[in-house]
Amino acid sequence: MANYRFEIQYEGTRYAGWQRLSGKENTIQGKIEDVLGRLTGEPVAVIGAGRTDAGVHARGQAANAHFATNLSDLDIREYMNQYLPEDIRICLVEQVSEDFHSRYQAKEKCYLYRVSLKEVPDVFSRRYVYEYAKDTQRSLEERREAAAGALDVEAMKKAAAYLLGEHDFRGFCGRKIKKKSTVRCIHSIDIRMEEGELRFYYKGNGFLFHMIRIMTGTLLEVGEGKRPAEDMKYILETKDRQNAGRTLPAKGLTLLSVDF
Amino acid sequence: MANYRFEIQYEGTRYAGWQRLSGKENTIQGKIEDVLGRLTGEPVAVIGAGRTDAGVHARGQAANAHFATNLSDLDIREYMNQYLPEDIRICLVEQVSEDFHSRYQAKEKCYLYRVSLKEVPDVFSRRYVYEYAKDTQRSLEERREAAAGALDVEAMKKAAAYLLGEHDFRGFCGRKIKKKSTVRCIHSIDIRMEEGELRFYYKGNGFLFHMIRIMTGTLLEVGEGKRPAEDMKYILETKDRQNAGRTLPAKGLTLLSVDF
Repeated sequence: MANYRFEIQYEGTRYAGWQRLSGKENTIQGKIEDVLGRLTGEPVAVIGAGRTDAGVHARGQAANAHFATNLSDLDIREYMNQYLPEDIRICLVEQVSEDFHSRYQAKEKCYLYRVSLKEVPDVFSRRYVYEYAKDTQRSLEERREAAAGALDVEAMKKAAAYLLGEHDFRGFCGRKIKKKSTVRCIHSIDIRMEEGELRFYYKGNGFLFHMIRIMTGTLLEVGEGKRPAEDMKYILETKDRQNAGRTLPAKGLTLLSVDF
Repeated sequence: MANYRFEIQYEGTRYAGWQRLSGKENTIQGKIEDVLGRLTGEPVAVIGAGRTDAGVHARGQAANAHFATNLSDLDIREYMNQYLPEDIRICLVEQVSEDFHSRYQAKEKCYLYRVSLKEVPDVFSRRYVYEYAKDTQRSLEERREAAAGALDVEAMKKAAAYLLGEHDFRGFCGRKIKKKSTVRCIHSIDIRMEEGELRFYYKGNGFLFHMIRIMTGTLLEVGEGKRPAEDMKYILETKDRQNAGRTLPAKGLTLLSVDF
């Protein structure tokens, strides 16, 4: 059987995440496996590079699957897009060597977390950003201040620098992990003000459950002046989730790309 | 009673257009009138600058309404956004002079029509573009050619030039109009290739029913080499809708701004 690599785009809004569990949930992996099962007449297992959570989006998820077909790469893509719902698109299908594994061989993943600081949320991007302005904890005055640039971006950049490199990120993990390693390596964190949004670009060899959403929530608290930049070091050292900040909503997160 | 001007953003997908008719349809005007009725305890009539069709979006619709309230402009905005569905946002509320009329005093409207030429439709912009690639009339080959730039943009620009200035646009109107004038003035048409999309920017003093969608459909046929640029002149002269091209889907159209 041939091995095929996929590049996949999806809007996560309607889905219970990437990973198929019991098979009953509405998952992206499940939708893709169903379509490949229809194409081949056999059950097909799809391996994804990153198991994005419920509500998380992807511009460039990577996956692979072994199956037999007479169709060309392009015809497989066309077939899949014909039967997949329109919030999941296969951008590329490519036959690859038999030992290619999209999870084990992924070298770097790039994620984007978008925090909208707009005083009035933007209708067209509302599904893809965390709307700081809508957070009910904040008064209109605080929201206007945030929109006007009251968040301390330099302090957030200073705090983010503590996270670079290889660390045990257990303190930023949203799930108790006993056996598996919680050591990961972050290659870069880029924080930019673009189009009325604070955008956090993360590159690393892998990320734990909720890790980016907790890191971004903690960085925002630094930006709000509620904790010092040095807290990041403390959270890494104590490895205690209780010391980190809030988990931001899934919808602000997008998996941009996977590099091999 | 004071007169208030509004700047409004909406995603038209779910709506039967701007204009309230019998009051039973799901319209944007209806939603806004209902919220203002709730605020004031009285029926409030909202006047929109442009009556966008079902499925058409707006980044900068303008409207005004007369009503009495003790709330500040900012508090009116906050109240409205609290009760409006999240696909309609009030970006600005401003008390204006009593004689301000958003329809009669609108001097220029700017519309954008987006034609996506991507071989695989983009998940994140799919609600806001006409997907040329998805049009079932076209083979994969034709779609790939279009994505690669086979449409003749220069010919479309040449054709668009015939539409500039004051003309009777009856030939580009999707409805038989007997009494009212079908003369309008187009100030500019800008055609740009941006991010894998062909974007048509129209500025003018007003547009007839379906006019932009028919003009863009006709211009696309020029770009496809199916008709000469001079056809635009012929359609203006004969004033016959039958001579113009196809009406493109509503979802590709966005009202960008209204100038007074």
